[in-house]
Amino acid sequence: MRPPSRSRRRSGTLGIVGLGLIGGAVALAARRRRAFERIVAADRDAGVLARARRRGVIDDAGTLAEVAAQADVLVLAAPPRALVSLVPNAMRALRPGCLATDVCSAKRAVAAAAPRPGPRGPWLVPAHPLAGNERSGLEGATPDLLDGALCPITPVPGTPRAVVARTAAFWRRLGLRPFVVGAAAHDRAVAATSHLPFVIASLLSLRLDARRRAFAGPALRDATRVAASDTRLWVDILLQNRDEVRRALQSICTDLEWVASLLEREDANGLARALARARRRRTSWASEWAAR
Amino acid sequence: MRPPSRSRRRSGTLGIVGLGLIGGAVALAARRRRAFERIVAADRDAGVLARARRRGVIDDAGTLAEVAAQADVLVLAAPPRALVSLVPNAMRALRPGCLATDVCSAKRAVAAAAPRPGPRGPWLVPAHPLAGNERSGLEGATPDLLDGALCPITPVPGTPRAVVARTAAFWRRLGLRPFVVGAAAHDRAVAATSHLPFVIASLLSLRLDARRRAFAGPALRDATRVAASDTRLWVDILLQNRDEVRRALQSICTDLEWVASLLEREDANGLARALARARRRRTSWASEWAAR
Repeated sequence: MRPPSRSRRRSGTLGIVGLGLIGGAVALAARRRRAFERIVAADRDAGVLARARRRGVIDDAGTLAEVAAQADVLVLAAPPRALVSLVPNAMRALRPGCLATDVCSAKRAVAAAAPRPGPRGPWLVPAHPLAGNERSGLEGATPDLLDGALCPITPVPGTPRAVVARTAAFWRRLGLRPFVVGAAAHDRAVAATSHLPFVIASLLSLRLDARRRAFAGPALRDATRVAASDTRLWVDILLQNRDEVRRALQSICTDLEWVASLLEREDANGLARALARARRRRTSWASEWAAR
Repeated sequence: MRPPSRSRRRSGTLGIVGLGLIGGAVALAARRRRAFERIVAADRDAGVLARARRRGVIDDAGTLAEVAAQADVLVLAAPPRALVSLVPNAMRALRPGCLATDVCSAKRAVAAAAPRPGPRGPWLVPAHPLAGNERSGLEGATPDLLDGALCPITPVPGTPRAVVARTAAFWRRLGLRPFVVGAAAHDRAVAATSHLPFVIASLLSLRLDARRRAFAGPALRDATRVAASDTRLWVDILLQNRDEVRRALQSICTDLEWVASLLEREDANGLARALARARRRRTSWASEWAAR
């Protein structure tokens, strides 16, 4: 890895650790929006880095320490378990005043690995772009994957306000819509809105044996889409957030039993009330979504 | 309703009872494919019939008895509960040798209402086009909604083979892919592939309160799409198939508890095996789907 010229360093280098689906999308969005002078990346897979350089997605590649040492903003986008384990090395290599953020789906685990925030930095300000698709790796990334995505930011207590604002400005610059929330509240909410739906999509997919495929229509295709996502990534996510995911699994089971009891009693009115409420919530949310 | 000319009657009239999402799509597909000389329809809502005539979707409108008396093929496409209750009147009005079929999502209920099949007909051969979207009514119907859709046909025992073949030919002519299966096997399979996913989509939508919407991404949007469907229609479907739906609800609860226990034990390997199997099933099914 060539050392960057002094002028380049001053004008802003984006470092990315892990050029997968989200790390790749971060690089592509930063490039398209000309948000940084220079983009450098580290990845366990040298082939990915070579392809990314050839395609012009990044300017240079290096080790974690090399990339962190050059970065003004460092985005940790490795798979969740690896990401948490490389936090100490990344933070040691970052220069004072510089900023790390991440893309992990379970924020308490990242916060636990983050150094205590000092006045001079470097700082780690965890974040979670709510974007993705069922593909994986750099090949699945597109420049617009993050466009308009919500992006909760979960600062470690004691992080200077200006540093949180810089983190929000970084994500906003890439086209996301950042907002600040506590890590615990985040983990509980995404257990319900993301981790539980993924588990359900997988369990519905497990039912798709040869016999049943003859009866599967477009609704099931949509309901199971996310089950085609990267398995290793999801094992990490579910284990990192396992207490909240278990709580969500138990909660939906209670609801499923409630529906079963409405059916057993042939309670058409009770069923209609519940389904109508669900429909209103889905419809109003979809309108909000479309209006973004 | 004007009586059709004799030549028209001979050359084929399609009757449709219920111009909703699926009944409307049947009319539009028949029109586009020039499958019938004439299309006539009945609906509880006179406004729908008037709009359909104005748009040229149907040629004429009438009462259930009038439409059934003219039809060479009669498609019952009313909401499920109404559909089952109007079977006797429809069958009394159909001429000998003519054919009724339907679009209902629970086939044992329709079979129970069907007359015992005689040698001269008319016959009711139940069917279930596996198509739809989250919209409802004629306004949601499109000429291609049924294109390529699987279409299980569940003949009442004793129905002449040639009559089943005519029913299959009718649906094939509209662009669907019919196959014959028993009503009980159908109801069990769609409980797993359609009714259970709808209940889950609704329960996930119920969780979308204001607080959680800030954490909801594209995966949840796909997972809940079907929850925006017509409530009354779904109350009918779930109640008609309630024993199989309850069985499916209990079965997914068992699976959810199994995942919770893998998380409790932090069994990364067990979790990875299950998710990888789900991913393979989803991916191979999606390939089959795309190859249709």
